[in-house]
Amino acid sequence: MRFFTSLNPKSSNSPASPQAVAGAGKPKFSPENLTTLPQVVAMEKMELKDDKNKEVEEEQVVNPWEVSAKDGGKIDYDKLIDKFGCQRLDESLIQRVQRLTNRAPHVFLRRGVFFAHRDFNDILDSYEKGEKFYLYTGRGPSSEALHLGHLIPFMFTKYLQDAFKVPLVIQLTDDEKCMWKNLSVEESQRLARENAKDIIACGFDISKTFIFSDFDYVGGAFYKNMVRVAKCVTYNKVVGIFGFTGEDHIGKVSFPPVQAVPSFPSSFPHIFGNENIRCLIPCAIDQDPYFRMTRDVAPRIGYHKPALIESSFFPALQPHYHSNSVMKGARLSPLAIRRGEGSSPISGEARRLQNGVPWRRKGIRRRDAPPLLLGFRDCCSFVETSSRIAIAIAAPSQGENGKMSASDPNSAIYVTDSAKDIKNKINRYAFSGGRDSIELHRKYGANLEVDIPFKYLGFFLDDDAELEHIREEYGSGRMLTGEIKKRLVEVLTDLVERHRRARAAVTDEMVDAFMAVRPLPNMFK
Amino acid sequence: MRFFTSLNPKSSNSPASPQAVAGAGKPKFSPENLTTLPQVVAMEKMELKDDKNKEVEEEQVVNPWEVSAKDGGKIDYDKLIDKFGCQRLDESLIQRVQRLTNRAPHVFLRRGVFFAHRDFNDILDSYEKGEKFYLYTGRGPSSEALHLGHLIPFMFTKYLQDAFKVPLVIQLTDDEKCMWKNLSVEESQRLARENAKDIIACGFDISKTFIFSDFDYVGGAFYKNMVRVAKCVTYNKVVGIFGFTGEDHIGKVSFPPVQAVPSFPSSFPHIFGNENIRCLIPCAIDQDPYFRMTRDVAPRIGYHKPALIESSFFPALQPHYHSNSVMKGARLSPLAIRRGEGSSPISGEARRLQNGVPWRRKGIRRRDAPPLLLGFRDCCSFVETSSRIAIAIAAPSQGENGKMSASDPNSAIYVTDSAKDIKNKINRYAFSGGRDSIELHRKYGANLEVDIPFKYLGFFLDDDAELEHIREEYGSGRMLTGEIKKRLVEVLTDLVERHRRARAAVTDEMVDAFMAVRPLPNMFK
Repeated sequence: MRFFTSLNPKSSNSPASPQAVAGAGKPKFSPENLTTLPQVVAMEKMELKDDKNKEVEEEQVVNPWEVSAKDGGKIDYDKLIDKFGCQRLDESLIQRVQRLTNRAPHVFLRRGVFFAHRDFNDILDSYEKGEKFYLYTGRGPSSEALHLGHLIPFMFTKYLQDAFKVPLVIQLTDDEKCMWKNLSVEESQRLARENAKDIIACGFDISKTFIFSDFDYVGGAFYKNMVRVAKCVTYNKVVGIFGFTGEDHIGKVSFPPVQAVPSFPSSFPHIFGNENIRCLIPCAIDQDPYFRMTRDVAPRIGYHKPALIESSFFPALQPHYHSNSVMKGARLSPLAIRRGEGSSPISGEARRLQNGVPWRRKGIRRRDAPPLLLGFRDCCSFVETSSRIAIAIAAPSQGENGKMSASDPNSAIYVTDSAKDIKNKINRYAFSGGRDSIELHRKYGANLEVDIPFKYLGFFLDDDAELEHIREEYGSGRMLTGEIKKRLVEVLTDLVERHRRARAAVTDEMVDAFMAVRPLPNMFK
Repeated sequence: MRFFTSLNPKSSNSPASPQAVAGAGKPKFSPENLTTLPQVVAMEKMELKDDKNKEVEEEQVVNPWEVSAKDGGKIDYDKLIDKFGCQRLDESLIQRVQRLTNRAPHVFLRRGVFFAHRDFNDILDSYEKGEKFYLYTGRGPSSEALHLGHLIPFMFTKYLQDAFKVPLVIQLTDDEKCMWKNLSVEESQRLARENAKDIIACGFDISKTFIFSDFDYVGGAFYKNMVRVAKCVTYNKVVGIFGFTGEDHIGKVSFPPVQAVPSFPSSFPHIFGNENIRCLIPCAIDQDPYFRMTRDVAPRIGYHKPALIESSFFPALQPHYHSNSVMKGARLSPLAIRRGEGSSPISGEARRLQNGVPWRRKGIRRRDAPPLLLGFRDCCSFVETSSRIAIAIAAPSQGENGKMSASDPNSAIYVTDSAKDIKNKINRYAFSGGRDSIELHRKYGANLEVDIPFKYLGFFLDDDAELEHIREEYGSGRMLTGEIKKRLVEVLTDLVERHRRARAAVTDEMVDAFMAVRPLPNMFK
């Protein structure tokens, strides 16, 4: 869960921090020097291994349907970049975007939320030469309302659309959700339409934006491209990319071409005619497998490879345990994790959790020396930023906890939440890195590595100076948990309230208009 | 290649011959008492095994992409019925059709070309109660012009449409051919349209018939049904049914639902609205796997299982070797096959072939006692009647021969052939069961089991009395090969000439009209 540090996950030997844009000469919002929670968890796990020699290492898994870190720790985004073969979105590229668009880079760019890419530099090259491109993103409509994580790719895509003045296609994969979530066709379509309202509420320009649902739009030129792609991909290949098994239904095997072909302008003849322009896809990195496949196929069927700009994952309110379980005091196995730098009390949040649970893991003893931060075994959950997958996905949990989903209303802030809901969720559920008592907090300062309010502000507080101020004040213990939570409540209430007003203004006619198959004559203006 | 005896392939212990309709009290067109060529081939093969102990038995394979008999012999339709789990289309059912439709059963029914079914009796039950059904057939457009084998399902479907006064949907699987034959999308679509003209020329009623190409029509309600089907079928299942491998592309894995869903009326809302009426599919039995899958899925998604009426395969002009190879004298391995009942000369055709080839299989000696019929090792080819597959498929050949395809213009009569072409092909290429000399022919009579002119007349000579007359005269040696070929040339020239005239009258506007997505208000009148 180190999306802030995703640009420099390997600390000192990583390239320069892109967060440099946030300020200069003073301590920046650059957590790469901190020991992260996952690292601490990993340390604990190594101890356990040393002690018990029982643990089995697991590789991290990131694909469109599963995001799980190695050994229940953090996602290693560096490794992901290497494994996937994509590129780091470095500072020079961000500055280039700023220069080309004549506006400040989006907060998600300058804080490294979007941290990786494929051929984004080529897109900028051709843009600089006056060549056209279009944007493609999407969402798998498996839930009624979006949460904040779902908004991220759309907020970012709107920024790209505005900054580059380019057309955008948004795919609602109701067919995918029908197949994966076992929803009925009708329910998937209903959710697609509901989600379209939330997407429209993000402020997309109707003169440049075509939203389509697969159930509505698959056919014609789009279907022909599906067949062209499918011809180029063997079953073994999709097994290698997506990990399908023989017991998976063939709908799953059939789906990758459906998500692939919006990358090709000929799938939208009403918009692009015969123009073979390039495509840029903003998405969460868990969608990379689809587009690796697409990029592999594209030149073989006469199309450009789509370029990608990829985000890390968005954290759940309680990234480390199932909130309901905690609140009910059931089936939690908290375990002490030591830090290396001397004695300190357990964090307030961790202690409260430990006190609330009915049993403790046998054989795990609280070490005497180090300050206890917090820790729950083998669990680490995400509300990922993917626009495709609505559920929050947990790292492999060995049983009792760690599994959470968007169906748990307390795991995330939804765009339908009231101001009271938001206040309540943040105050009750947002995991805090604050200490157990005011005295200890003043002494040690908050652990920003695990502090959800601080992470959330990193996403949604646009003011770099204020964020930096909070980092200093809260990290040093001068600011208390209640204060940062209060500020986060303000920021999110404002965001959600604006979104709700915008969504309320979205009529069925507007949805029809965005989803109408039509030319977009002013799409580059 | 015993499509005539497909109803009673196991001779005496099989049910009564359906050919009984052809006459009564006199020798009928019922070859079940004859030793068939494949049986003779099998006898020869047993000899080879005894002699050399080298042969490996192979099971027959019948699926949409491969039709091959066990050990290169004949297709065992009885076994196929048992293996597939379909039912024999028996005499009582044929008589019931006659009674319900008030007209003579089609020649393909009374001569057992359509020999198997699934739930056809249920269709007749509901028809008798005044309930509606519709017909669905199709074609994979992989060749410019159709040959006679391709016409069979359409001729039969037209009969069903006229007899039962029901609507019909005809699927042109241009997507399938694009994927399997590696045709471009555009070429597949062009072929689909060309083939549509031939199909329309069969005389379908435009007020009851909707022809569609997948590339044009997939989408909307049709695509929704594709997804519903795909959700119900695992990859392991399609491997079991169709024999896909991991190296097959995912287009193949994705295709079965495309062929499945025309079985459901909701795939055609413009025709059937919300009516959940039953579907009857006339097709060659190699298409059974698609519809076994469909029938398995149908009740799980709220639809009737489609009923089927299934044909055997249509023989090539030279069912047992590659005609070009023979004409060029290249790479043929004729081998003597003995019959059990005394000395007799080799058939004229077989001898001519033997004389024409540059080498003879080592270790195969012509036995002294029995009459040599003919025989070529391990090869047996079909121009199948499947409306789906345009190539003629050969049984497994162990190397040098046996492989033929519709791209060999001399292997089949095409609907584009001129009268001269037909005369030439029949006289030069139609494999004859006539004997080596007039004297021997008068003495032994023609071997009707292997005689292609006689088999073809069985398909296309409607007059049962005349066919029976020919069987007697030719089988006894009173009629010569030249005479039966002359009659066949007349019959086929007439058929093809009528087809050509009808096709020439098919305009692009008519194709558009048949393929227009439209209601069919008079479809049951």
